[in-house]
Amino acid sequence: MLLRRTQHALRGATPSRFRPCARCVWYNSAASFGHAAPERKVIFSGIQPTGVPHLGNYLGALRQWVKLQDEAAPDTTLLYSIVDLHAITVKQDAKQLAQWRKEMLASLQAVGLRSDRSILFYQSSVPQHAELMWILSCNASMGYLGRMTQWKSKLALPDSASPLDSSPSNKSALKLGLFSYPVLQAADILLYNTTHVPVGEDQAQHLEFARELAISFNHTHAPQAEAPLLVPPTTILSPAKRVMSLSNPAKKMSKSDADVKSRILISDSKEEIRRKLRSALTDSIEGITYDRENRPGVSNLVNLIYYMDESVGASPEMLAQDMQGLSMKALKEKAVETVEDRIRDVRERYEYYMRLPPSELGELAEGGGQRAQDIAKGTMKRVRTAMGMA
Amino acid sequence: MLLRRTQHALRGATPSRFRPCARCVWYNSAASFGHAAPERKVIFSGIQPTGVPHLGNYLGALRQWVKLQDEAAPDTTLLYSIVDLHAITVKQDAKQLAQWRKEMLASLQAVGLRSDRSILFYQSSVPQHAELMWILSCNASMGYLGRMTQWKSKLALPDSASPLDSSPSNKSALKLGLFSYPVLQAADILLYNTTHVPVGEDQAQHLEFARELAISFNHTHAPQAEAPLLVPPTTILSPAKRVMSLSNPAKKMSKSDADVKSRILISDSKEEIRRKLRSALTDSIEGITYDRENRPGVSNLVNLIYYMDESVGASPEMLAQDMQGLSMKALKEKAVETVEDRIRDVRERYEYYMRLPPSELGELAEGGGQRAQDIAKGTMKRVRTAMGMA
Repeated sequence: MLLRRTQHALRGATPSRFRPCARCVWYNSAASFGHAAPERKVIFSGIQPTGVPHLGNYLGALRQWVKLQDEAAPDTTLLYSIVDLHAITVKQDAKQLAQWRKEMLASLQAVGLRSDRSILFYQSSVPQHAELMWILSCNASMGYLGRMTQWKSKLALPDSASPLDSSPSNKSALKLGLFSYPVLQAADILLYNTTHVPVGEDQAQHLEFARELAISFNHTHAPQAEAPLLVPPTTILSPAKRVMSLSNPAKKMSKSDADVKSRILISDSKEEIRRKLRSALTDSIEGITYDRENRPGVSNLVNLIYYMDESVGASPEMLAQDMQGLSMKALKEKAVETVEDRIRDVRERYEYYMRLPPSELGELAEGGGQRAQDIAKGTMKRVRTAMGMA
Repeated sequence: MLLRRTQHALRGATPSRFRPCARCVWYNSAASFGHAAPERKVIFSGIQPTGVPHLGNYLGALRQWVKLQDEAAPDTTLLYSIVDLHAITVKQDAKQLAQWRKEMLASLQAVGLRSDRSILFYQSSVPQHAELMWILSCNASMGYLGRMTQWKSKLALPDSASPLDSSPSNKSALKLGLFSYPVLQAADILLYNTTHVPVGEDQAQHLEFARELAISFNHTHAPQAEAPLLVPPTTILSPAKRVMSLSNPAKKMSKSDADVKSRILISDSKEEIRRKLRSALTDSIEGITYDRENRPGVSNLVNLIYYMDESVGASPEMLAQDMQGLSMKALKEKAVETVEDRIRDVRERYEYYMRLPPSELGELAEGGGQRAQDIAKGTMKRVRTAMGMA
């Protein structure tokens, strides 16, 4: 149902910020959809430069980005940013960050994003992100930011923690950047007159915050304007595709896991994929069933096969039923073949981009940054004019 | 003594960030002065766009800026910024802000700053201010910022107030921009490799913060570098010249005072100056003496005459002694003549600049912004490279 609504949002209908349509509100507090004349869409999303993406990143975000690109109307603008300014809210090693940025840029193209269609760029190459962030921050309430939960989870603090807490662990750890990054995230989106943002559920709170900042800014600076100064964006909530760690299926597959066998990267060779899947933690129950609670490891492999190739069945449950007679070894081998089948081209393209002379990848990033800046400059000019700073 | 030290700092000796000189430490925690080979100086300061400056602004900051310009070595770079991005930390009316920016730019030139020597520019025309601010904010402690006092005084809150206080007045009022503006101020300074910052005493805390951010950034990102990535600036603390309100000499002369007769603007005609000074609050004690506590109004007029024309005496006290036989009316008339004598040229230049076609003043601001950006871009490139984002 959620998927159908998203498709509805992206293909048939068009967003109307001012005429809500009771029939197709698909995300409670986001914009509603009307059926007015078509409107040009702008799709924006960002990913942190964490190096080569794993299958969790690929299935959770990147594959949807490609789908949005491939199904977009010709007049739709798509921007996908490698958000390095967000990465530095936690300590980074400069050399590693440089490498991770490059690997992520090669990966975006490897998965099928085309720089001649989508604008692919490093956030730090567009100074207007920080510029708009400052302007928005003059209207962003400290109390509201303090109640947001992300900085607490990044610092592994309890929900009751205060940003100014005098407990030694917190006091030394919390920096202004981490505390205020939802405002930068709002600027990222609003800078490009974004109408649609594909994000995971954990970001819904921040998207709502971006909408509120836009609406409040418009109300203050251009209450009578026909078109909004800043476009309140709509969330494209993608159906959750939780890929779990291969070595501990209670946790999400993650870049930060110390065990490299816990994740499959989109650059992994078939041998690496096989080695990792063979050592995946399952159980000793005979036969295959789908039971996330009692058989998390097996269910994760079923999910992985299903997510990688949805043509295999109507649901993970039905896929498991079809495979019920398989041994654990055969299940793992099926996972190897399915992953390899879908990832082979991606891996080859990744290797191609990483083999390019650095200057070519650099030029590509620069071109994207330039195109992004062209849009961003227009927004900032409008914003500064409305504020008396033109 | 302080004045002599400042002159020493600016003329004879040169700052050496690494070899402190016990002989001439003139500001406790700022950089010390050594006597090494000369080093290129960069002087930066900013003023908010509050319209035409009054004599408090002129004597407290602008006249010193001109002096620094006129006495600077040929290789010294001077930047004076109209800091509109700071102005918007409190609510502004767009039309008024636009007018005030323009009036301030005309005023800077009217007082004697020359756009062919000093770089005069609007802060908002250089996006790198916000860009560097974001980067610094990733290393700025929330606890430290919470202990800074300026946001409390701007919101008229007690020293014990917390930025996340749930008392209704505070909660609704404190925005992220106002809370975090010391970090923007640090970026303003560090962006230009500033070696010297002329500021008032109330800003010493923020300058120290900028130094700490620079030192910590250098330590993290370029511990071995010969030249610092970000130059820790030195404060030029100007001798306090407190000009008080004409209608209430217990308060500083201020733009925000509802009584326009409380302040003299640098654009005031001689008639306006006379009208305001004649209505200045004094007392009914016979004769002139300098006694700030018991005769604040009279002492303020003596100060004003002394500050406007230091050739009239060795100190305000001695000037008062010279004038002891004057009537109040004669004291006020002497003040009128002294102010008019020193302000006449400024007023005429101000009128000239305000009569220019808007495009000419605009071009002038644009030229300054461009020159500032050229320096700022170099700093940002260095910073991004050191962080792995180039």
